[in-house]
Amino acid sequence: MTVAILMGSRSDLDTMKKAAGILKEFNVAYELKVLSAHRAAESVREYVQTASARGIRLFICGAGMAAHLAGAVAGQTTLPVIGVPLSGSALAGQDALLSTVQMPKGVPVATVAIDGAYNAGILALQMLALADPTLAARLEEFRRKMTEEVLQANTGLE
Amino acid sequence: MTVAILMGSRSDLDTMKKAAGILKEFNVAYELKVLSAHRAAESVREYVQTASARGIRLFICGAGMAAHLAGAVAGQTTLPVIGVPLSGSALAGQDALLSTVQMPKGVPVATVAIDGAYNAGILALQMLALADPTLAARLEEFRRKMTEEVLQANTGLE
Amino acid sequence: MTVAILMGSRSDLDTMKKAAGILKEFNVAYELKVLSAHRAAESVREYVQTASARGIRLFICGAGMAAHLAGAVAGQTTLPVIGVPLSGSALAGQDALLSTVQMPKGVPVATVAIDGAYNAGILALQMLALADPTLAARLEEFRRKMTEEVLQANTGLE
Amino acid sequence: MTVAILMGSRSDLDTMKKAAGILKEFNVAYELKVLSAHRAAESVREYVQTASARGIRLFICGAGMAAHLAGAVAGQTTLPVIGVPLSGSALAGQDALLSTVQMPKGVPVATVAIDGAYNAGILALQMLALADPTLAARLEEFRRKMTEEVLQANTGLE
Amino acid sequence: MTVAILMGSRSDLDTMKKAAGILKEFNVAYELKVLSAHRAAESVREYVQTASARGIRLFICGAGMAAHLAGAVAGQTTLPVIGVPLSGSALAGQDALLSTVQMPKGVPVATVAIDGAYNAGILALQMLALADPTLAARLEEFRRKMTEEVLQANTGLE
Amino acid sequence: MTVAILMGSRSDLDTMKKAAGILKEFNVAYELKVLSAHRAAESVREYVQTASARGIRLFICGAGMAAHLAGAVAGQTTLPVIGVPLSGSALAGQDALLSTVQMPKGVPVATVAIDGAYNAGILALQMLALADPTLAARLEEFRRKMTEEVLQANTGLE
Amino acid sequence: MTVAILMGSRSDLDTMKKAAGILKEFNVAYELKVLSAHRAAESVREYVQTASARGIRLFICGAGMAAHLAGAVAGQTTLPVIGVPLSGSALAGQDALLSTVQMPKGVPVATVAIDGAYNAGILALQMLALADPTLAARLEEFRRKMTEEVLQANTGLE
Amino acid sequence: MTVAILMGSRSDLDTMKKAAGILKEFNVAYELKVLSAHRAAESVREYVQTASARGIRLFICGAGMAAHLAGAVAGQTTLPVIGVPLSGSALAGQDALLSTVQMPKGVPVATVAIDGAYNAGILALQMLALADPTLAARLEEFRRKMTEEVLQANTGLE
Repeated sequence: MTVAILMGSRSDLDTMKKAAGILKEFNVAYELKVLSAHRAAESVREYVQTASARGIRLFICGAGMAAHLAGAVAGQTTLPVIGVPLSGSALAGQDALLSTVQMPKGVPVATVAIDGAYNAGILALQMLALADPTLAARLEEFRRKMTEEVLQANTGLE
Repeated sequence: MTVAILMGSRSDLDTMKKAAGILKEFNVAYELKVLSAHRAAESVREYVQTASARGIRLFICGAGMAAHLAGAVAGQTTLPVIGVPLSGSALAGQDALLSTVQMPKGVPVATVAIDGAYNAGILALQMLALADPTLAARLEEFRRKMTEEVLQANTGLE
Repeated sequence: MTVAILMGSRSDLDTMKKAAGILKEFNVAYELKVLSAHRAAESVREYVQTASARGIRLFICGAGMAAHLAGAVAGQTTLPVIGVPLSGSALAGQDALLSTVQMPKGVPVATVAIDGAYNAGILALQMLALADPTLAARLEEFRRKMTEEVLQANTGLE
Repeated sequence: MTVAILMGSRSDLDTMKKAAGILKEFNVAYELKVLSAHRAAESVREYVQTASARGIRLFICGAGMAAHLAGAVAGQTTLPVIGVPLSGSALAGQDALLSTVQMPKGVPVATVAIDGAYNAGILALQMLALADPTLAARLEEFRRKMTEEVLQANTGLE
Repeated sequence: MTVAILMGSRSDLDTMKKAAGILKEFNVAYELKVLSAHRAAESVREYVQTASARGIRLFICGAGMAAHLAGAVAGQTTLPVIGVPLSGSALAGQDALLSTVQMPKGVPVATVAIDGAYNAGILALQMLALADPTLAARLEEFRRKMTEEVLQANTGLE
Repeated sequence: MTVAILMGSRSDLDTMKKAAGILKEFNVAYELKVLSAHRAAESVREYVQTASARGIRLFICGAGMAAHLAGAVAGQTTLPVIGVPLSGSALAGQDALLSTVQMPKGVPVATVAIDGAYNAGILALQMLALADPTLAARLEEFRRKMTEEVLQANTGLE
Repeated sequence: MTVAILMGSRSDLDTMKKAAGILKEFNVAYELKVLSAHRAAESVREYVQTASARGIRLFICGAGMAAHLAGAVAGQTTLPVIGVPLSGSALAGQDALLSTVQMPKGVPVATVAIDGAYNAGILALQMLALADPTLAARLEEFRRKMTEEVLQANTGLE
Repeated sequence: MTVAILMGSRSDLDTMKKAAGILKEFNVAYELKVLSAHRAAESVREYVQTASARGIRLFICGAGMAAHLAGAVAGQTTLPVIGVPLSGSALAGQDALLSTVQMPKGVPVATVAIDGAYNAGILALQMLALADPTLAARLEEFRRKMTEEVLQANTGLE
């Protein structure tokens, strides 16, 4: 395993699978896990403390409302932690965004857009590519294709 | 010790002392402690797990920004946890308020107003009074005095 | 009766029943009541003033918009008052949250998440457990089961 | 007395005096009163119930944070109630604005701008002028002068 | 005609009819009018300037987004103006609320809740009752019935 | 005169002078005027209706709170109107921003940043340059210099 | 071509077509283009740098979320740029509004309402009319008809 | 050079130096650069395109208001980009936060707290440590010291 994709609730799975999808596309191993900073705090601790030994290099954590999962993980590791604030509450993810991004001095969470699990996967790949020139090259190729697709969206526009 | 007053940073002390002040006025024992959900997660855990044995009956937790302290404590105990969102960030406590109050199903935090440490102390007393008729009677007396003071504010008004 | 579950409007019943549900699960007696701080102010007053004599130990109050019910109750008792801000307005409960939590010095409302009636019930149990060791033990057992359920959500995940 | 100017705290006096000032300018009798919806609920009730007998025709209520004063008064009278949300909290009056204006069906509060006590006085005069043609004429004259003053602000501008 | 009910767009009619409904219930004459502060500024001016002569005593103005209608009317009369911020924009009426309530010194708008046209009607009646004791008595009776209805909502609750 | 720079209050002058300053730098004639959409509505109307005859080609309007000035002008002309939301209220210009930008269908206001009077001047020049190739060339030169200044900010940085 | 209508994604087409529609009604030539400030930055640059030579006189740019398209274009031209913040994100366009309007000193974007593509078209026409008296006259006629339509909305209202 | 620390304006230097400070503490080479996405777009492009050749492995970008710098860089590289939303505008960094974090699909920015330049430096180190076991070990040691410091803040507390 290289990337741990954690989520606060099973109901977050559909969104968080988008992170898994892009990792799979790049053949990066990952595991999906439902863990709750509040309802299963001890399990979060055990999971994070043993993660490195299982090969985990970074974490992607998705949570809604008072989204503490990414912060709780970041407080127990010095590996990079990517936070995905999830909408779905009455406040449409504004609560989760602030709970994820406004971390105190010394313990950052790399926060992406509300429900931005796909981008969390891309960001994980960019981090891993720092130690993997082949992955770096594939990301550049991926970007080129994405740009092409945007431009092809013009076909038949006028 | 009966009440644990925890705060995320030493700089929160001036605000959180107001909780201590009202408890002292009612002769309820407390301890003040700087603990950080992110920068000292293990200590939070140890503190909470041993709190009951030291006589702690409830927690008052003040924190700012992505204020996870109250939630982190609440995730490790079934004693009541009172959360005090602290201002002082660029967002004036809006981040701390949402991070404290929007807890997920099963793990409540009893949240008071932004910087409302004094009221957190009152709320703690109200909870403790459920098992202490003398304290309950003193709270009623305290309320009567407070009402009188409000009305005395009219002296010389017109 | 031990817990009063009050709501500002009959239309709040579906949400507020979640507080009743968890109390019932723990065999704690409660009464559900529609009372309005604005449209039936006198009844709120009479209800609160006679509550203690009927055995009420704490209040759970749910209201939306300019949600004054919890505050109005808290202004007439020194028993603990739990506030549940309800969504359903154009502002999705942001108005109710601020109207409930931002109480002035001396009169706290223990506020839970927007629409967090279930957690209000849990918080009520935590408060009552301060005077009831059996209830405290049952809450710990309940927490353990909740943690297990979260972890079982991983079944078949990968 | 014709107009009751109520405020939640003595510290609101400087702002609320602006309502008194404009009423004095129009020779409309008023009384200033510190009353708290939460800390002196019973006094609010007594005050409102006896107000009509003392000649009070309408209320101006200023309060901050979870500003319930205007709503509490409105719930106990069918006279018009003007609400002045006060800033001064961490949220700069956003909490007071929503707590004042978002009243439920059947019990309106005529809300003016944050800290808009002066305008509350003008609005009171406009309401009273409905039954007082002389006052109505004076308000028109007052408006004309105000317009002139705005235009005179151009003197020496270029 | 006694009350002018103005709205910025025909699409606001369903909401604004609630103001008309309660006025009709009290036999207060009104007229409904679509006028736009921006798209028909001249007509607003003519309408307001001739309103008094047609017997209009006060205005109820509903508008959404940058809701200027109430303010534009208030700038051209010294009769009371009630503003109803309408939702329906991307911002759910937050824009209309601030555009309606945050009026400058000297020109108040009596603002009610977002989409609160019904309460605007009640507020209009309360203002008119200042000069009409019969109406005042009927409003008190109306309030009593409303309170009863709230309490009857408890039937069969437990 | 080519550009009318209008403001709701004399106290807005310091901010709005920045629009004048950049116009002066480009030798574009302007007039500064204090006009209030609410307190001097008739004057706004007269001013706008005669503006074209005086050579006015576009308007820059600065106002705070329920900032209606730009919208009021836009409703009475088909010349371009640039709106500058001004801070200075309790809400720091959030109210002015929404009141200025959220205009209804058919009557746009070209809104710039809160307190962005300088940029309003630049935008005015860009519009005027559509009919003035010399001005267009000077704007390009101006941009080049601005870019150089940004890059010179690096001098002595490391 | 006279006006470039750019959008960040093909999915924005339905909204942005409203800008095209009003331009077509006035026989002003335009081109619709999908370009992304982030996913096709180089194409934006090439497009803007060659736009002037193709006759483009101004830009209308619609984008959602961290809506950088209008700003990116404005940073590469001194022609006027109109920004249309698009809703559709969890934050309902609040993010796009702030990302579009809060431009730094020297590089304005003329921002219209959230999803206000139609008004962006009107604003473009108003700008072009500065150099085109016929267009100016047609805009005045258009305004007159719009006003009539608003007033005709009263047909059968009472 | 390993890390590029970019900022939109020289006035951002004091905040952004905190990122430099922590990198220096870990002996990681960096360069500080003032570049503006809007006022010096071409320079941003050149800088980013040549960055890799100069050894740059990742970017830290601080900007305020419509903070596009991080996004503009991210659109031109597949190296990791860390965004620091800066306060200092009327909106206290809320605009910068949303402009930085709400990036579209495919182009993430790893966003930290408002004014969180220090944490941006820590996050950069965590990313670089993925390819540098010595750095990883030093980060763990650094965390241990930070935890100790938090706990030492308790000295003399009671």
